[in-house]
Amino acid sequence: MKAKEPGRRRFLKEGAVLAGWAVGAIRSASGQTPGSEIREIPEVPPGISNYGERSRFENSARTGAHTPFQDSVGIITPAALHFVNNHGFAAPEIDPRQHRLMIHGLVDRPLIFTVEELKRLPSVSRIHFIECAGNSAPAETGNAQSVQQTHGFMSCSEWTGVPLAVLLKEAGVQKGASWLVAEGTDANKHSKSIPLEKALEDVLVAYGQNGEAVRPDQGYPLRLVVPGWEGISNVKWLRRIKLVDQPYMAKMESMAYTVLWPKLEGKSRWFNFEMGPKSVITRPSGGQRLPSRGFYEITGLAWSGWGAIRRVEVSTDGGRTWKDAELQEPVLRMAHTRFRFPWTWDGEEAVLQSRSTDEQGQVQPTTAEIGRMWGVNAEFFQSTKTRVNHFNPIQPWKVTRDGSVHNALFS
Amino acid sequence: MKAKEPGRRRFLKEGAVLAGWAVGAIRSASGQTPGSEIREIPEVPPGISNYGERSRFENSARTGAHTPFQDSVGIITPAALHFVNNHGFAAPEIDPRQHRLMIHGLVDRPLIFTVEELKRLPSVSRIHFIECAGNSAPAETGNAQSVQQTHGFMSCSEWTGVPLAVLLKEAGVQKGASWLVAEGTDANKHSKSIPLEKALEDVLVAYGQNGEAVRPDQGYPLRLVVPGWEGISNVKWLRRIKLVDQPYMAKMESMAYTVLWPKLEGKSRWFNFEMGPKSVITRPSGGQRLPSRGFYEITGLAWSGWGAIRRVEVSTDGGRTWKDAELQEPVLRMAHTRFRFPWTWDGEEAVLQSRSTDEQGQVQPTTAEIGRMWGVNAEFFQSTKTRVNHFNPIQPWKVTRDGSVHNALFS
Repeated sequence: MKAKEPGRRRFLKEGAVLAGWAVGAIRSASGQTPGSEIREIPEVPPGISNYGERSRFENSARTGAHTPFQDSVGIITPAALHFVNNHGFAAPEIDPRQHRLMIHGLVDRPLIFTVEELKRLPSVSRIHFIECAGNSAPAETGNAQSVQQTHGFMSCSEWTGVPLAVLLKEAGVQKGASWLVAEGTDANKHSKSIPLEKALEDVLVAYGQNGEAVRPDQGYPLRLVVPGWEGISNVKWLRRIKLVDQPYMAKMESMAYTVLWPKLEGKSRWFNFEMGPKSVITRPSGGQRLPSRGFYEITGLAWSGWGAIRRVEVSTDGGRTWKDAELQEPVLRMAHTRFRFPWTWDGEEAVLQSRSTDEQGQVQPTTAEIGRMWGVNAEFFQSTKTRVNHFNPIQPWKVTRDGSVHNALFS
Repeated sequence: MKAKEPGRRRFLKEGAVLAGWAVGAIRSASGQTPGSEIREIPEVPPGISNYGERSRFENSARTGAHTPFQDSVGIITPAALHFVNNHGFAAPEIDPRQHRLMIHGLVDRPLIFTVEELKRLPSVSRIHFIECAGNSAPAETGNAQSVQQTHGFMSCSEWTGVPLAVLLKEAGVQKGASWLVAEGTDANKHSKSIPLEKALEDVLVAYGQNGEAVRPDQGYPLRLVVPGWEGISNVKWLRRIKLVDQPYMAKMESMAYTVLWPKLEGKSRWFNFEMGPKSVITRPSGGQRLPSRGFYEITGLAWSGWGAIRRVEVSTDGGRTWKDAELQEPVLRMAHTRFRFPWTWDGEEAVLQSRSTDEQGQVQPTTAEIGRMWGVNAEFFQSTKTRVNHFNPIQPWKVTRDGSVHNALFS
């Protein structure tokens, strides 16, 4: 790296390890720093809690650990409603003062960082979605009723952290290193191989989520954010990054999260990274009911692991005609984009669906088109017991004459 | 309005009132719709709550109802840490099914909306700061130690709601209307006069905050968001908008939130709307301590009620030299902008400060420059017992040789 990027600054002296910020290390339960001369601390006004809560009339819930997108507005997913997939293992409870991140393997200077040391280094904040590769997998969700069940294994947050490239520069990546293996602190020791090229491009070691610390369910105190790539890459409770010369074929990249196309005849497709262009109408969506004819704004989300969304089209007549939806600014790369489309319901049956196009010109496919890529009939997806990953078809919602809305993926 | 904007669509039939979405009106405690045929609801995996919480090791708190910016990352303020100023009155507990918003006065069609009816209408999502006019008021915070106390009466959220212009179009604003009075449901019946021109430009009737319902402390279920204008304009628990032909001189725009420049000789300056260009370093900031010499990223926030931030400069030598900080994209209008600046501390005393410039070319002033505008010496602000609103001076933090950081506004 030095040879390639001679102008890039290094932030640590040779072999040195930063000492943490005192304020982080010794903060007391009150959130104030002991011993600092803080004068005139205002009293909390009556009735205002130190850490506010939502209304008792609100009960949107991440049922099944899925984000309830039928209730979503905007592009930020509240941290409390972020989807969770821990592969059956409990989130470890980590004291951030005890936690360390080690960078080793094919590096000139193996390094160990505390969380507070990482917070001294150059940082970035970016809004990115994270989507589980199994989101919308038809065996599990094809007949599900709500958008929470069909598309709730994704979320979108403002992540803050240190670019992994900064840390790798400190460590000095050796010639011959081409991959890294990231490892979590969970009992599963979840590990994922990531190409060095991606690590240097835009991967973050994140300590912040939506303006505060990453939540325990999301990897507190440190997680990887690997923009646009399948959720499994975004290693939570990150404790170790090893520079290596080949992928390690860890459990979750060999025994699972592969793609088993029938035409591969028993072989599987490994290392499917980017999540394809996708979109879904969140309102009206399955399980909701339109109380009367008249005007409704159709709204939903679009995203692509390949970059920014360029276009979303909406059809309200079962796909015969499509019109452009309005995209809410800012439209960000590898982030949810909110779209909106005005619609007047005439009381007759209607099928609502959305179709996204990303900056690469890739268009979200129909289920039939995915079938052709796989070499199967569309019915395959309805009956398969295999978990189909990276399933990004256009999602139709049928509005019946009584106003109820139903999943019409297979009807 | 019709004459001026003939192409703008109306969404309601003459005199009609929308019926709410059934799903909103009858949602049960489980968050599911009773009677809808939801199959295969996944069970919540063990250990994952329906509405997640932060780590027990995190205790950042809105002490004194101020946002703890010393802990902030990115630009989104977590709803739980959003500042609160209810002027001594408790937040009302409002059942959204019972709540109504009335639009009346100088309109062709007085209208009453339920919350669910508003959610059917065209919506927008925008990231905006809200800053109390009294944020950083020197009599209260000039000698305060932390950035939470000096600058914590502001926050920044992704707000979602209906443009007020859409609702006014439905109601039909009559000739002669030039202002509106917005009223809240709190015991104070907080009311604020707002020029019609601003209402038609970018004001929102917001029901969403950071991807979920507006929090009770922030006006649940409905609040005004008046981008860039002093906090008092953003009426919470909104229940009534009356179109009128003059400002109403309500309590909080006549007895308070005026500007008392001494050179006005007893008169006060009313209706100060836009919050001026401002910025503050959040890390390192007062009350923190640098544990050792070496590299630190200086980071902070900049904002202006007049539009987007164009430039932030940082000085680490008490103002002798200034260099441009890096602005984190996206840089949005009337929103917090995160800035970053690399710095190596040599162990000597240092004074750190930031200075913002907005899209109008307005530059954040020093305390002395504000004094000249007011016709007073800078010392006036140190001794005044009057609440100085719209106080946006450059904020210096002094790092002493032991690494502790102190408020140096008046030193």
